[in-house]
Amino acid sequence: MTKDPYSLPAEEFYARGDSYFLPHISIDCVIFGFHDNQLKVLLLEWKDSLRWSLPGGFILKDEDIDQAATTILLKRTGLEKIHLQQFHTFGDPNRDRKKHGINPPKGSNPKSWIMDRFVTIGYWALVEHSKVTPTPDAFSRSCSWCEISEVPELILDHNLIIEKALESLRLQLNDYPVGFNLLPAKFTMPELQSLYETILAEKLDRRNFQKKILSLGILTRLNERKQGGAHKAPFLYKFDKKKYQKALKQGLSFGI
Amino acid sequence: MTKDPYSLPAEEFYARGDSYFLPHISIDCVIFGFHDNQLKVLLLEWKDSLRWSLPGGFILKDEDIDQAATTILLKRTGLEKIHLQQFHTFGDPNRDRKKHGINPPKGSNPKSWIMDRFVTIGYWALVEHSKVTPTPDAFSRSCSWCEISEVPELILDHNLIIEKALESLRLQLNDYPVGFNLLPAKFTMPELQSLYETILAEKLDRRNFQKKILSLGILTRLNERKQGGAHKAPFLYKFDKKKYQKALKQGLSFGI
Repeated sequence: MTKDPYSLPAEEFYARGDSYFLPHISIDCVIFGFHDNQLKVLLLEWKDSLRWSLPGGFILKDEDIDQAATTILLKRTGLEKIHLQQFHTFGDPNRDRKKHGINPPKGSNPKSWIMDRFVTIGYWALVEHSKVTPTPDAFSRSCSWCEISEVPELILDHNLIIEKALESLRLQLNDYPVGFNLLPAKFTMPELQSLYETILAEKLDRRNFQKKILSLGILTRLNERKQGGAHKAPFLYKFDKKKYQKALKQGLSFGI
Repeated sequence: MTKDPYSLPAEEFYARGDSYFLPHISIDCVIFGFHDNQLKVLLLEWKDSLRWSLPGGFILKDEDIDQAATTILLKRTGLEKIHLQQFHTFGDPNRDRKKHGINPPKGSNPKSWIMDRFVTIGYWALVEHSKVTPTPDAFSRSCSWCEISEVPELILDHNLIIEKALESLRLQLNDYPVGFNLLPAKFTMPELQSLYETILAEKLDRRNFQKKILSLGILTRLNERKQGGAHKAPFLYKFDKKKYQKALKQGLSFGI
């Protein structure tokens, strides 16, 4: 057995991939990045059909599903040790390439295991845009960032998967801190607010935001302003890593 | 093909169930009820081995996973039209009955599809205790309520599944209203607080709780006190169904 079935030639992958992977189960990853005040997501453009899809993959017969997701993230971004949040499993019986007119590459078996119905487990990750090297998989000609508001029509239910990932990310904002992987090490309050506004897709009141976010006790204000010089330049902040990690573990308990 | 493969004799179910169901994927349901100020969960006791497990089942080859979960809930409780919350998919490669010394019933094929590794999709539901008729499945001798704090050792990772369901339910309290299916139509503020305290496993301040819960605008105070008579008897409340449904859809936005 080869160690990495993803490196098999397409024809063989389609013919015999199911001797490595669990049948009927896949993983799709919604990889979010934040750049130029925009929330972006990583997409693949397929070689043959020029369709767009989320980065995804399968689960080795003896592999943990979280590990399978970690491998996909690593292969597409070069990033390790990033938190992947499992958010939803998609099990519409129409998740079946045959029903969507998607054919295997020329020369591959049209009755391939990949043409069966798949239940897919969705994960999202928040990554630092500048640290990512978008890398296409064997079936894609490109891998690139796409602004959330400009995502094209994707295969199967991948647009719905992004929608659900965003919903999960928005709810997460209530319960857990967000920003550590998305912002540079030092950032201003307006930058942090802009990140929250982009994820929530709504404008927030500046004073309320500052009050609430400071009350979480996860920020440290530095004795340093953006760019130096002008007195009106905003102060820089950084996350208090210890308190941030604690909040990640325990939740923020905004609620009752 | 029979319409309901769950009604097959055990031997046949073990031998040929995989001609009806997706292989390697199962569903487990954590069904919560609230009774005598206690949070309870529905468990099955197996016929042969007297082990305990969560109610669960499989997914027909052309069935939506949510529908499969709905069928399990109906079969075990008699309840329909209850919201089932998918909360996590469990994919440890050790989720394999062989690795846990669990054997198929006598006379069944020890190499049955059921003895393979399974990835399981977890759902929880909140149901009105008094409306449930706990009903064992074909492999169980009993189906009964068990207090959360008294759950015995369950098969595979089912204890972990309950833990994760509780975690999800607790987070849900921050984002969505809870209580509609758990409490009787009319209830007192102390009863509602007690429900929240039981789910959160912590004592809450009476005045704070009342202030926060009323601020959600989902309750209507009735002009009626518990039991009539004494003036100190607490007022009865009911949920404003329309506002409750809206909050379920939009979230409570306690947060930023």
